[in-house]
Amino acid sequence: MIKARVTVTLKNGVLDPQGKAIEGALGSLGFDGVGQVRQGKVFDLELTSADPAKAKEEISAMCEKLLANTVIEDYSVELV
Amino acid sequence: MIKARVTVTLKNGVLDPQGKAIEGALGSLGFDGVGQVRQGKVFDLELTSADPAKAKEEISAMCEKLLANTVIEDYSVELV
Repeated sequence: MIKARVTVTLKNGVLDPQGKAIEGALGSLGFDGVGQVRQGKVFDLELTSADPAKAKEEISAMCEKLLANTVIEDYSVELV
Repeated sequence: MIKARVTVTLKNGVLDPQGKAIEGALGSLGFDGVGQVRQGKVFDLELTSADPAKAKEEISAMCEKLLANTVIEDYSVELV
């Protein structure tokens, strides 16, 4: 069995209101010196496949089709 | 300036209906051999502080207070 972690983040230049809200909340809680905050998603997958190369390819296909919106998001796949 | 990535994931044993939905959707799309899927969050932070050790400590405090719900979530901090 192969375990993988997919990280999906907003592309540079795409507005992130959620990140901005967190930035503001951290400031209100007294955390000074916080610059930009951007929020993304992470998916932990378990695949029954045994071939790492093939698994990575399959996960990329999953990202393109479902996990990431490639118009505004980047993704990275990492086998654990 | 210090950049850090915080990854927040559900603890083992905590139900993840969103992950289950993704599992189902991947199956419907024809991706066989997908076992468990669990979704988490990732935060990319920029801190103006220059001391990595102090920054890490401050980020842990942010996680405890705002970024993670430590009753049901684990977090990990990684300086980039």
